[in-house]
Amino acid sequence: MSWIETSYMGRKGVARGRRGATHALTEARQGPYHYVYGPYATPVLRVQPGDVIAAETHDAFEGKIRTEQDSPSALLKMPFLNPQNGPIAVEGAEKGDVLAVHILSILPRGPQPAGTTALIPEFGGLVATPATAMLNKPLPERVKKMVVTPEGVVFSDRVTLPYEPFIGTLGVSPEIEAVSSLQPDYWGGNMDLPDVAPGAVVYFPVHHKDAYLYLGDCHGRQGDGELCGVAVEIPAVATIQVDLIKGWHIPGVRLETEAFIMSVGSARPMEDAARMAYRDLIRWMVDDYGFEESEAYFLCTQAGKMRVGNMVDPKYTLGASMLKTWLA
Amino acid sequence: MSWIETSYMGRKGVARGRRGATHALTEARQGPYHYVYGPYATPVLRVQPGDVIAAETHDAFEGKIRTEQDSPSALLKMPFLNPQNGPIAVEGAEKGDVLAVHILSILPRGPQPAGTTALIPEFGGLVATPATAMLNKPLPERVKKMVVTPEGVVFSDRVTLPYEPFIGTLGVSPEIEAVSSLQPDYWGGNMDLPDVAPGAVVYFPVHHKDAYLYLGDCHGRQGDGELCGVAVEIPAVATIQVDLIKGWHIPGVRLETEAFIMSVGSARPMEDAARMAYRDLIRWMVDDYGFEESEAYFLCTQAGKMRVGNMVDPKYTLGASMLKTWLA
Amino acid sequence: MSWIETSYMGRKGVARGRRGATHALTEARQGPYHYVYGPYATPVLRVQPGDVIAAETHDAFEGKIRTEQDSPSALLKMPFLNPQNGPIAVEGAEKGDVLAVHILSILPRGPQPAGTTALIPEFGGLVATPATAMLNKPLPERVKKMVVTPEGVVFSDRVTLPYEPFIGTLGVSPEIEAVSSLQPDYWGGNMDLPDVAPGAVVYFPVHHKDAYLYLGDCHGRQGDGELCGVAVEIPAVATIQVDLIKGWHIPGVRLETEAFIMSVGSARPMEDAARMAYRDLIRWMVDDYGFEESEAYFLCTQAGKMRVGNMVDPKYTLGASMLKTWLA
Amino acid sequence: MSWIETSYMGRKGVARGRRGATHALTEARQGPYHYVYGPYATPVLRVQPGDVIAAETHDAFEGKIRTEQDSPSALLKMPFLNPQNGPIAVEGAEKGDVLAVHILSILPRGPQPAGTTALIPEFGGLVATPATAMLNKPLPERVKKMVVTPEGVVFSDRVTLPYEPFIGTLGVSPEIEAVSSLQPDYWGGNMDLPDVAPGAVVYFPVHHKDAYLYLGDCHGRQGDGELCGVAVEIPAVATIQVDLIKGWHIPGVRLETEAFIMSVGSARPMEDAARMAYRDLIRWMVDDYGFEESEAYFLCTQAGKMRVGNMVDPKYTLGASMLKTWLA
Repeated sequence: MSWIETSYMGRKGVARGRRGATHALTEARQGPYHYVYGPYATPVLRVQPGDVIAAETHDAFEGKIRTEQDSPSALLKMPFLNPQNGPIAVEGAEKGDVLAVHILSILPRGPQPAGTTALIPEFGGLVATPATAMLNKPLPERVKKMVVTPEGVVFSDRVTLPYEPFIGTLGVSPEIEAVSSLQPDYWGGNMDLPDVAPGAVVYFPVHHKDAYLYLGDCHGRQGDGELCGVAVEIPAVATIQVDLIKGWHIPGVRLETEAFIMSVGSARPMEDAARMAYRDLIRWMVDDYGFEESEAYFLCTQAGKMRVGNMVDPKYTLGASMLKTWLA
Repeated sequence: MSWIETSYMGRKGVARGRRGATHALTEARQGPYHYVYGPYATPVLRVQPGDVIAAETHDAFEGKIRTEQDSPSALLKMPFLNPQNGPIAVEGAEKGDVLAVHILSILPRGPQPAGTTALIPEFGGLVATPATAMLNKPLPERVKKMVVTPEGVVFSDRVTLPYEPFIGTLGVSPEIEAVSSLQPDYWGGNMDLPDVAPGAVVYFPVHHKDAYLYLGDCHGRQGDGELCGVAVEIPAVATIQVDLIKGWHIPGVRLETEAFIMSVGSARPMEDAARMAYRDLIRWMVDDYGFEESEAYFLCTQAGKMRVGNMVDPKYTLGASMLKTWLA
Repeated sequence: MSWIETSYMGRKGVARGRRGATHALTEARQGPYHYVYGPYATPVLRVQPGDVIAAETHDAFEGKIRTEQDSPSALLKMPFLNPQNGPIAVEGAEKGDVLAVHILSILPRGPQPAGTTALIPEFGGLVATPATAMLNKPLPERVKKMVVTPEGVVFSDRVTLPYEPFIGTLGVSPEIEAVSSLQPDYWGGNMDLPDVAPGAVVYFPVHHKDAYLYLGDCHGRQGDGELCGVAVEIPAVATIQVDLIKGWHIPGVRLETEAFIMSVGSARPMEDAARMAYRDLIRWMVDDYGFEESEAYFLCTQAGKMRVGNMVDPKYTLGASMLKTWLA
Repeated sequence: MSWIETSYMGRKGVARGRRGATHALTEARQGPYHYVYGPYATPVLRVQPGDVIAAETHDAFEGKIRTEQDSPSALLKMPFLNPQNGPIAVEGAEKGDVLAVHILSILPRGPQPAGTTALIPEFGGLVATPATAMLNKPLPERVKKMVVTPEGVVFSDRVTLPYEPFIGTLGVSPEIEAVSSLQPDYWGGNMDLPDVAPGAVVYFPVHHKDAYLYLGDCHGRQGDGELCGVAVEIPAVATIQVDLIKGWHIPGVRLETEAFIMSVGSARPMEDAARMAYRDLIRWMVDDYGFEESEAYFLCTQAGKMRVGNMVDPKYTLGASMLKTWLA
């Protein structure tokens, strides 16, 4: 028996986590990729709760950066960045429901070196940006290509880092907004949170009929904060299973693994993302695990974990988590 | 001769600031109001550079709060807040142009008391919000209605404040995003900046063909920061003139009066909005007034002015300005 | 009759604002200047409530930057910056009292050009700093000297700015801390707030017996935010009168002019300084002017003013103010 | 052979990490505890590099909170909080050196329940505070006492958390400032960083002759962020070894374990603490591990770890770390 049977998805999902049909969302089937999370696009796929989707995702640069000699600023054009697969219509989803996305696997695809990272002018956590505007001159551009396989990310001659892939951008449509896929928010989007990885179930509040799921921007791995703004960006086949939970109301993104539950906050300044994440975790502990509020506050103080997803996107993303052991 | 002839609009506008036809954008002609700034709506009006539009704007609550006994939380429903007139298509506008909006007049309309302010749970500058999330209990709701005429805002028996109206929300469509009219950003939107007042010319970077101008959310007056989040909200007739400037590239909103030029920044945390505004002001001084960068930096240090527009919206808005006297 | 008689100082001060003896705090009498606000130094002067002190202040660089060819980074040495006169013991001051400082005049002294501004590496509002750490290279250093007289600040051949002097750094000792004179906080210090100008009365909460007043860092003028970090720094004779108020408890710095009252907040991020200032202003209106809290909140929303003092010091300083007209 | 021999302390320390004399810094020997980190106190102990000190630390409340019925606001009095042992003079330490502190063990002392956590009005990460000032009413006070032994922290009937002790407040004197022991900064202080634990070596830049080491505020354990502001506070015997490194210049606190190196940043807003930590880590990798700057930036992006120490103190503390494996 898998722990999934004991997850929210397994216990409360319309499909109880049982797998339905598998859909291949190839590049060809996708057609044009999308650069906003919104309700104004036409679904490329309609699925049932329980169905599995294997999506061919592009990397965040849509494959335009091919060699270490390429110039990101010459090849990339705002706002046409971070291409997304979708929207995928999940039948039966209504505003107020929760969409569960169980991440099954993420595999690199395409020619090697499949991985790209880069220094892009006025972008990143340790440089002046249009938001944190300064008069200092930008750093020089630089591209680094890396061989990425399930055996590892070849960072340099000396260092091969573990392959620990996750989906950088994943979420559902807002109700009436259509927001850049570069931005994370309560609907998901560009969270760049390494916990959105194979094995995890991610929960999103549904705002639009049929949910309109988007995904893209897979990473071969990433450190906390995605410091320079560009992780190990890879084109990938991301395989996910979806389910639908009725009667569970969540204000933003939540996540579950066998070991822990996590609430996600996206905001600026960073402390607001941390507050948002921890407050939702406390409310979750109160609503579903029988904690008195101050007791949950105390337990988070003594045993909570905080993951810094990104410190570079239009909103920073942090995840506050609690081991299930301490919720028993 | 009006100073307008010497303004950017007067000198560089396609219409050189000359007035064209006048269009009445009544409630009836508007039909449904909009809650996002985006390219997905159909224009309600097509105008030429130089044309004048008299728009019947709703207040930010679409008139739903009628008495001091009304409950904002019962009557208001996210994201259907801050209704906007438009989009108004300005013929000839192309991505990369600048749309000039000259504000001619703002007059309250509708039955008295026309003005509304309110304490809304989890909203405002001195309370915990969904973004600055805390465990403290919200303040009680409260509504305050005020008689608002060009003679003044009757705040209380003792105090009548000057009528100093401005347009709270004004801007153009982003290129592919459709963003809540509650948010300010580089395209304008919910800046809540008291300088967006009769006499001023506001400049917006065009991102979409025909610009798609939106406006709404007139205020009878407001203090710096719009502290509780709700100014003297009024339904109004806002009369504006539009013009189009080719070959002037601006990264965000700029503003001009007879006395000063201003660059606007919208961001969180607040220092980022201040940095954004001041950096753009310096670049403007360098590009158009012949300053060497460090000299402009010094002059802003010794003579710059900073206006706090809002400290309550999804992004805070600040305006950095310089007297034209010092630019001579 | 001066408005001072109606001020807090005039109504509640031990000396009722009446002038006592005048003390000349010359450079010679001062001896070594101080670089911290704290209780560990020996007073250079003991005064009575009502007394007047004429202090010979140094500029923030202690006069070390003499020409435009000087190198700030070679001449300045942390933490020996921003030299302060004092401490001045005010007899009778006890923890919990309020020290009133009425600023009488500020006159430049020393050889011309008396004014200095500069670009200092890793310091300023639009550059990376040790706090907002980035990898961008610093801007080049630059010094600008200016003739400063009561007739004006000669900024350039074309532009002479008004002489609008104020005391950049002014305050009292914390109880047990001794904190760099570069930092503003609830005890005053390096607020760089242009309202601390001749004519104003500034109120400080006393934390240490005899208050231990410090002052220095006079500015010939300054724009909002002190953008590059260095205003028109001048050596000066600053003449102030002190008084003592018993039984008035204030949490931080307050200020009064004939026209308005102001609460000061120093914090990072900037919105916290704004919140602190406005909350204290509301509490002041409630305690001393008979406002109900929500009514004060509404009035600040519609008629409050916010001044950005500095956006460059270890804490940013903002002042929230209300016209006395609206408090009547 | 211990990894300590390969540490900075082991390789570069004056004592090469060899243990010298052991000093018992009992409550009696300490006498009055201190509430500031500064140079104005007289050393309670003089030690040589290599010496071991076993200090009897108080908890952050100096033992005043004895039962769950106690009222923190009645018993605690600012600024007399977070009592510190010290200063300990380390002979030979000069400004510009590095003080190494090897943490050997932390054991609870005193009667059980030895552990205290509490909700204190206007203090904590999810409530309005004097800095993040709001009008919301504070949460009710609450005290929770916990039995704390090396076998575990008895959080509740159901849950015993692992005993994972660390020193909450540890550091050296600033050069001329004396700053509250509640504040963390470049000299250490109230970092509340769980990595400051037995086995780690912490490095501090020396600013004052003989370094003047302070310590206190031991925690039985703590979650990331110390959310409510009060960890598992315990009186303890903290045993540390000190050493001195000449010729190594560091701008702030660094830390080393067998597995990783870490740079610490303390600042507000939180992203500034993160930037500070990561920038110093990159500079460390460049200076001591032969990385080119952009390569270090890339490696931090792909493999850096970020620990949130506290999100409640006057400055937030974060630690950026890199596994030694990837530095090889």
